[in-house]
Amino acid sequence: MGVISFLSDYGYSDEFVGVCHGVLAIWCPQAQVIDITHGIARHDIRAGAVALRGAVAYMPPGVHLAVVDPDVGESRRAVALRSAARNHLLVGPDNGLLVLAADRLGGVVEAVDIGESPHRLEPVCATFHGRDIFAPVAAALAGGAALDTVGEPFDPGELVRLELPRSRVVDGTLIAEVRSIDHFGNSQLNVDHDELCAFGLRIGAAVELEGAGGCFAARHLNAFGAAAVDELLLYEDAQQQLAVAVNRGSAAGRLGLSQDSEVRIRLR
Amino acid sequence: MGVISFLSDYGYSDEFVGVCHGVLAIWCPQAQVIDITHGIARHDIRAGAVALRGAVAYMPPGVHLAVVDPDVGESRRAVALRSAARNHLLVGPDNGLLVLAADRLGGVVEAVDIGESPHRLEPVCATFHGRDIFAPVAAALAGGAALDTVGEPFDPGELVRLELPRSRVVDGTLIAEVRSIDHFGNSQLNVDHDELCAFGLRIGAAVELEGAGGCFAARHLNAFGAAAVDELLLYEDAQQQLAVAVNRGSAAGRLGLSQDSEVRIRLR
Amino acid sequence: MGVISFLSDYGYSDEFVGVCHGVLAIWCPQAQVIDITHGIARHDIRAGAVALRGAVAYMPPGVHLAVVDPDVGESRRAVALRSAARNHLLVGPDNGLLVLAADRLGGVVEAVDIGESPHRLEPVCATFHGRDIFAPVAAALAGGAALDTVGEPFDPGELVRLELPRSRVVDGTLIAEVRSIDHFGNSQLNVDHDELCAFGLRIGAAVELEGAGGCFAARHLNAFGAAAVDELLLYEDAQQQLAVAVNRGSAAGRLGLSQDSEVRIRLR
Repeated sequence: MGVISFLSDYGYSDEFVGVCHGVLAIWCPQAQVIDITHGIARHDIRAGAVALRGAVAYMPPGVHLAVVDPDVGESRRAVALRSAARNHLLVGPDNGLLVLAADRLGGVVEAVDIGESPHRLEPVCATFHGRDIFAPVAAALAGGAALDTVGEPFDPGELVRLELPRSRVVDGTLIAEVRSIDHFGNSQLNVDHDELCAFGLRIGAAVELEGAGGCFAARHLNAFGAAAVDELLLYEDAQQQLAVAVNRGSAAGRLGLSQDSEVRIRLR
Repeated sequence: MGVISFLSDYGYSDEFVGVCHGVLAIWCPQAQVIDITHGIARHDIRAGAVALRGAVAYMPPGVHLAVVDPDVGESRRAVALRSAARNHLLVGPDNGLLVLAADRLGGVVEAVDIGESPHRLEPVCATFHGRDIFAPVAAALAGGAALDTVGEPFDPGELVRLELPRSRVVDGTLIAEVRSIDHFGNSQLNVDHDELCAFGLRIGAAVELEGAGGCFAARHLNAFGAAAVDELLLYEDAQQQLAVAVNRGSAAGRLGLSQDSEVRIRLR
Repeated sequence: MGVISFLSDYGYSDEFVGVCHGVLAIWCPQAQVIDITHGIARHDIRAGAVALRGAVAYMPPGVHLAVVDPDVGESRRAVALRSAARNHLLVGPDNGLLVLAADRLGGVVEAVDIGESPHRLEPVCATFHGRDIFAPVAAALAGGAALDTVGEPFDPGELVRLELPRSRVVDGTLIAEVRSIDHFGNSQLNVDHDELCAFGLRIGAAVELEGAGGCFAARHLNAFGAAAVDELLLYEDAQQQLAVAVNRGSAAGRLGLSQDSEVRIRLR
C-alpha cells in the first residue's frame, strides 16, 4: 500500500499541492506519490471524476487521493473507500468525485466517514481539508492503517452518485455531449465503444458533425494520423470513448465546443 | 536530512525545474524532493516568501530550497541557513525570500555565504544559480554535509529582511492590503488572527468591504460553504490570515483586486 | 538504470502525464522519475528537442523518455536508443525529438524499433503511445531489460534528423533566429559560443538589435544584473547560447519576437 496517487483542482500557481505532499511525507515517509493532475477545472467534480476514472486503471495498487471539493467545510461527508479491486482505496469528499473510479475498480465494498478521523490534523481548517483531513488519512492508509480505524463505517449505498448524461439516437442522429476537452482541443463525447458500434459507426465511415460552430464533414478513423492535416475526425480515444479531433488543430475551436456542448452525428 | 522541498518562479513551460531536479538526483540520489510550487509570479520575492512561510510548517525536516531571484548574477548573496527548528535548513538568494519561513521555523541560528561554495558547478552560469549553486548545495546538505563546509559563515543579522506592510485601523475602518490571490480568486489580506480579533470581527458579523471595484456587503464566516452561492465573505484562511472569497466565484474579480490592492473593512 | 527522466507536450491540465507515471510505477516500482517539463508547446518537436538537449547533461544516467508526437498512430517509428555516454538510453518517437540529446550524449550507438515491443500494453491505443508503448518500454529498460530485447534493431543512420537553421553573417550583420522563448520572455538565438566569438562580440560591446518590433540599442553583458533595470541586453545563457533579455522585463515583448523570428545584430 505504499503508493498514493493524487488528483485535485488546486492548480499549479499556489503552494496547496506542495503542502499536501509535505503532509503525506511527514505521515508516511516511505510512500511514493504520483500526481495524476492538479489541473482539473476549478470545482468541476465531473471532470475530476472522469479523469480519475480514466487514470486508476493505470495506477499501482494503493491509495487514490482526490480533492475537487466546492463544498469544503459544509455538511458533505469526507470519506475513505475500499474497492473490490484488491488493495485499491480511495480518499476524498463524498460528492461523486470518487464513485466513477470506484466503479471502474469493481465497486465500493467498504466505506468510512473520516470527518472526525483520529488522523486528521487539529485544528481542521474549514477551507483546506486536503491538508488537514484527506492527506493525513491517505498517509495513514498508505502506511498500513486498517480502513475501519481511520473513520466511522457507513453504508456504501449512501454515497453520492454522479449522473453522467447518456447519448441517445433520435431519427438516425446520434446526439452526444462533450464530456471533456483536453489541452490539444480534442473533445471526448459521452459515447462508449458499445454505443458507437450500435450506432453503426465503422472505421472509414463518412459522417456529418454538427456543433454550435456549424455543420462539418468528417470521417471515423483509427488515429489522427490517418486524417489529412487539418481534417476533422472521429476516433476512439485512449479511454475507449468516442472523441472529435482536428489533425494538428483543435476540434473544440472548429466546432465551437465547450464542456457539455451538444454534438450531433449523422452517417452520410 | 534526506528531504528537499523546492519552490521557485521558474514556471512549468521550460526545463529549468527539471534540470534542478536532475542536479539534485545526481548529487544526492537518495533525496526525496517535494515541489512546493514553481508557479510563483515572476520575480515576486514577497509572494514566494509568503508561500514558503505557509508551506514549511507542513514539510518534513530537511532542506528548503527556494529560488525567486531577480538579481541573479549581481552582488546579492547566495546563502544557506540553519533555523532554530531542528534539522530545517534553507537555501536560496539573500533577498528576503527565505527569512519569513526561517522566522516561522524559530529564526536563523547560523548563516553561510555559498557564492563560492566548493559544491557549486563550474563554470557557474551568471543567469542560472538554481542549477549551478543552489541545487548542488542543497543536495550536499541533504546528503549530510555540515553547514560550515558548504560556505563562508557570516552574521545572520546581515540578512536582507522583507518588510510586509501592516494593516491599520483608522476611524473604525480596518485598512488592509491584498497579500496574495490564489487561483480560485480568494484574496488573502495582511490581517492575522490577533488583528482581526482586536478589530472586533466575530463569526457572523455583517461588514462592508470596499475595493477598487466598489463597496459590497459581506459576512465574516467560518467557511465558503456557510455562505450562499455567489455571496461575498470574509474568512480565516488555512494560514490563519483574514481572506476574502466569493462562494463558487472570484473575490478578486468581484472587488477588483490585485496584489497590494487596498481593501477597507467596516462593521455594519 | 533506476532513473527515468520524462519530457512531453502533454501539458498539466489532463491526466496524461499522471497515467504515464502510473505505468512507470507498475512496471518499474523502484524507478525514480524526474519530470523535465510537460509544458513543451503542442507538437513542437524542435522545442522539445532543444529542451531535452539542454537537460540531459544534468540528468543522472538512466532512461530519457520524451514524447512530442504529432504523428502518433502513423508510420513514424517508435524507438529506443543507446547513446555513447555510458548508461544513457532514450525512448520516444523517431521524429527528431531525441537526436539532439543523443548527440549531446556522444551519439547513438544502438537503435531498436519498439513499435511491436513485447513490453507494450495491448491493445495499443493509436492516440496514446506514451501510455501504451513508450512508458512501458522505458520502465522495462529502467528495470534492467537489455536494449535488444525490447525491440527490433535497425541502423541508427536511418533515424530522422532535425535540421536547425544556422545563423549567418552578411555584410557585418549577424542574422540569427529565435530558437526558444522562456516564460520570462528571454529569447534564445541560434548562435553558440564559438559563433558569437567569431562575430567579435565581446563583453561590454555596444550593439544594435533589429527585430519585428523595431531597432534597439543594447549591450553584450555577463548577466541581467549588469544591465540597468529595463535595459535590453545580449548574454550567453545557461546552455551557452546567445540570448536576448530585458532586465526585469520581456525581450520577446520589446523586440516583437516569437519562435523562429529573425533578429539582426550589428556592432556599433
